[in-house]
Amino acid sequence: MTKPILWISPGACSLAPHILIREAEIDFETVVINAKAGFPQEYRHMNPKARVPIFQLGDETITEVPAIMTAISQMSPNKHLLGKTNLEIVRTYEWCNWLSGTVHAQAFGGVRRSHRFSDDPQTYNAIKAKGRKTIEESLEFIEEKLKGSHAVGDTFTAVDAFLLVIYRWGNDTGIDMKGKYPKYANLVVEGLKRDSVKAAIEVEGIKFEV
Amino acid sequence: MTKPILWISPGACSLAPHILIREAEIDFETVVINAKAGFPQEYRHMNPKARVPIFQLGDETITEVPAIMTAISQMSPNKHLLGKTNLEIVRTYEWCNWLSGTVHAQAFGGVRRSHRFSDDPQTYNAIKAKGRKTIEESLEFIEEKLKGSHAVGDTFTAVDAFLLVIYRWGNDTGIDMKGKYPKYANLVVEGLKRDSVKAAIEVEGIKFEV
Repeated sequence: MTKPILWISPGACSLAPHILIREAEIDFETVVINAKAGFPQEYRHMNPKARVPIFQLGDETITEVPAIMTAISQMSPNKHLLGKTNLEIVRTYEWCNWLSGTVHAQAFGGVRRSHRFSDDPQTYNAIKAKGRKTIEESLEFIEEKLKGSHAVGDTFTAVDAFLLVIYRWGNDTGIDMKGKYPKYANLVVEGLKRDSVKAAIEVEGIKFEV
Repeated sequence: MTKPILWISPGACSLAPHILIREAEIDFETVVINAKAGFPQEYRHMNPKARVPIFQLGDETITEVPAIMTAISQMSPNKHLLGKTNLEIVRTYEWCNWLSGTVHAQAFGGVRRSHRFSDDPQTYNAIKAKGRKTIEESLEFIEEKLKGSHAVGDTFTAVDAFLLVIYRWGNDTGIDMKGKYPKYANLVVEGLKRDSVKAAIEVEGIKFEV
């Protein structure tokens, strides 16, 4: 059995499954590509949707963060990385779909990948401004929802991993994350103590400040 | 135990869980609201994200299509509505995240809800045009991926229900779905034979032509 391979781009949303697969204590390999300026053309055969992360599991190639999180969790069922109860699992998918579709693709996508929403560069300032507004609304929504140092239940799940990535992007966007969202900052402080998170950050060679 | 309640808007993406809950043969109630021109302000307390579907399960309010699909499947585990094997389940989440985030929110959202991407109405034509282009690329991608009358495995899953909704929207957008995407049309023809699909369409009072 060959090891699973996770394709990542440093600091991209692939950081979430990267953290999760370390949390799962699965033996795996990484392929690191740089998708910051766009997904490299030469790897498009791996994912015609032109996105990281990509997860190779034997002959199967899996895309989309929540699907990869599901595959990782299946490989380490005792860790309950999607939650312990049926309702927790539902909440994990609820969070992940919103973080992936609204917060990442729509809000941060508007700011960083404006060309996905229009072919006319003259519209990009307006798209970036709206993306920024949706980011801030989303961060407020997260802050309101959080109750403790985990988003779902009382243990570390895929959602915490995803929230770590989004928090870091908030900082990158120049938002005063710690000042404006103290509950969210607390979740991140706790997350950064974990070996899985420390190792993923180190391997990706990125900075992560609260 | 009170019956679960599914909040739908006729023909919206809520049609997918509406089909699925009938497929699951769960006793449920519907609340029908009209979100075509936007999610009604008076129901915003139900979902601050201002979207259908909403699923009320006792005291719990669940949002986001893949999460609601998960909850429905959990209530009727023998139907395997997310797939039968671990890999099928991963594929279901892969499809659903892409259909929800890229095809629905980004592509159809660009055409129908341009205001989510910009506050400047002068940019809306460009956003609509790009949305239309992404819809067509997505439909081609779907057509390429489909192998038979089910998207995942050899039985009806949440993905088939979601694909039915997207197909109908394609028709509404003026795309020659049957002519351009014959494999996709075949999946829809098969889907429309199911009692669950027929009943959901009838209750929503919508037209559905292949």
